[in-house]
Amino acid sequence: MKLGIIGSGQLGLMMILEGKKLGIEFLVIDSTKEGPASRIADKAFVNDEFREFVDSCDFVTYEFEHVDERPLNYAMEQGKLRPGMLPVELKRDRSKEKLFLRENGLPVGDFEIADNARDAARIGRDFGDAVIKLAHGGYDGKGQYIVKERTLEEELPEGKYVVEKFVRFDMEASVIAARDPAGKIAFFQPSLNVNYRGMLYYNAAPIEDCGMKEIVKALMEKLSYVGVIGVEFFLKDGKAYINEFAPRVHNSGHHTLMGSSVSQFEQHVRAVCGFPLADPQLYRSSGILNLVGLSLTDELRAKILARPETQVYWYGKDGIRKRRKVGHVNFSAQSYSDLLERIKTLSSLVYGEDLDQYFGY
Amino acid sequence: MKLGIIGSGQLGLMMILEGKKLGIEFLVIDSTKEGPASRIADKAFVNDEFREFVDSCDFVTYEFEHVDERPLNYAMEQGKLRPGMLPVELKRDRSKEKLFLRENGLPVGDFEIADNARDAARIGRDFGDAVIKLAHGGYDGKGQYIVKERTLEEELPEGKYVVEKFVRFDMEASVIAARDPAGKIAFFQPSLNVNYRGMLYYNAAPIEDCGMKEIVKALMEKLSYVGVIGVEFFLKDGKAYINEFAPRVHNSGHHTLMGSSVSQFEQHVRAVCGFPLADPQLYRSSGILNLVGLSLTDELRAKILARPETQVYWYGKDGIRKRRKVGHVNFSAQSYSDLLERIKTLSSLVYGEDLDQYFGY
Repeated sequence: MKLGIIGSGQLGLMMILEGKKLGIEFLVIDSTKEGPASRIADKAFVNDEFREFVDSCDFVTYEFEHVDERPLNYAMEQGKLRPGMLPVELKRDRSKEKLFLRENGLPVGDFEIADNARDAARIGRDFGDAVIKLAHGGYDGKGQYIVKERTLEEELPEGKYVVEKFVRFDMEASVIAARDPAGKIAFFQPSLNVNYRGMLYYNAAPIEDCGMKEIVKALMEKLSYVGVIGVEFFLKDGKAYINEFAPRVHNSGHHTLMGSSVSQFEQHVRAVCGFPLADPQLYRSSGILNLVGLSLTDELRAKILARPETQVYWYGKDGIRKRRKVGHVNFSAQSYSDLLERIKTLSSLVYGEDLDQYFGY
Repeated sequence: MKLGIIGSGQLGLMMILEGKKLGIEFLVIDSTKEGPASRIADKAFVNDEFREFVDSCDFVTYEFEHVDERPLNYAMEQGKLRPGMLPVELKRDRSKEKLFLRENGLPVGDFEIADNARDAARIGRDFGDAVIKLAHGGYDGKGQYIVKERTLEEELPEGKYVVEKFVRFDMEASVIAARDPAGKIAFFQPSLNVNYRGMLYYNAAPIEDCGMKEIVKALMEKLSYVGVIGVEFFLKDGKAYINEFAPRVHNSGHHTLMGSSVSQFEQHVRAVCGFPLADPQLYRSSGILNLVGLSLTDELRAKILARPETQVYWYGKDGIRKRRKVGHVNFSAQSYSDLLERIKTLSSLVYGEDLDQYFGY
């Protein structure tokens, strides 16, 4: 069995580290052969070699939705792409994603589509409390504008926008789930997301479901989805609203690398290769702290590894800059409250009290 | 940080899969570049390139004690070898290993050294119930002869032997432990070993300690050991006797890949690189079933992965033959008795009732 991965970042790296045990070969394609996943792949390709790449694979998946069109399209033509093209198309235009969710009866907050910056600004002012997001491109808080009293259209670059009325949520949460080609679905435990400046800061499981799993099930079925999906929610008064979904393994599922019977990465490989899904069990409260904008010194690594029930994943990216995710730390603990305390303690040790030094623009 | 591994088999493969997250580079050396570990290493070398290999590494370890002398010796000269040469030397001559244990006051069964086959046979007859083992070479039951009434010297190849009075043990067990360069020791939970025809068939944790950890601590200190060690014991009437030790990650520690806070592989990498050791916690009863002499078909993989709380490690070796370890299955379970039942159920599904088809000579 040969599985192709489009994209060579940390998600592909962890897919290989976790999936290699299944006795399959991993082929990776990206703009260079130097990405973290390409460096440990059985074979690495560059995008121009998309035909040879796809032809060499039994199945092709993607670790990220913003990748080269050619391997995606050709894998789709060859009937090898899992998940398929629909989720990618929805993710490439936020307005399509939002409309798809609403049209399929899935709970989302109020939003409107604006064809230009002026309309976006006007709708934003009308909502009063809103987030204006460019429809194309942008993740981890890029291309997003928070409406404040003085927001004027002059501040927005020209483009198509989704304007979302701000949900005064009690918390943000995720559900990671997998669906196999026969339609069987398996859920990981819901987890808490704490974001900072539009990026995931830390994540902790398990939390109450609040109906999220049922919503994810409906979404996967509407998408005829195969693979692992990550769905982000706003929780408000015990009700769940979809924020957005990621058609792939997701940062809020990295906690499954420790303290679980299976990781999201292995589960994704099982799903797209058509192997039996695992029934995920969480053995212990587990979470992560993202490592953003840091250099891995021996001192930093020692500081992290000296903490109890802790693992570090360092992605091996070249070049460190602000707002760049360079790794994460896994934690497990006897209780959820112990878990949160451990995450916060390490955060202080790693970042001190000024997160903006690392997460700031 | 660059860590070199001498040997490119499955132990090196798992060391890389588990250690890569720490943000280090892995260099592997062996007689070819085709071994499972070489194929995913950051860089692979052949034995003739031993100087370049060692010179490129910060530290060098070995995944197996029967490896090429040149990288071992040169890494030792350069002060980079962890664990050191003493454990390798002891493992290359069983008589030295046994004498070392006895001279250091560590509990071993009765044994005698024989310089030739005739003496070995005579000592074996005198013990009555004995195992005659060639001093050099041999593992997984190779080079071992069980004394029965009719054993005569003609059946033994010429050579130096260790003749061990057979210990009528209640069970066989292991302890996996790690020691860091500063002398700190961390233990995994003791586990049960069930062998078949001299090879590990299955393994299950946790079991009672019976004093094993104290013995392992003394052994590691006598060896000035750095890294993970696997020590096999006979347990009889609640007392522990060392059978033998392996100066490396060990088959009976593979259960730490699932249901534990850290695997033996990551722990070994932490120890030899001088990173803080983890304090291993076993979240759930965990064990393995060895896969021996089998081919990985889609059907076999599906059969294994469909079982609850199960993972499969397939080593990707070229060529399948009887008595060759080609993978293992990890299990976790709510209780130790559930664990044993799951292992036995899968064994029946995989091997049927005739183990000799796979484990036989």
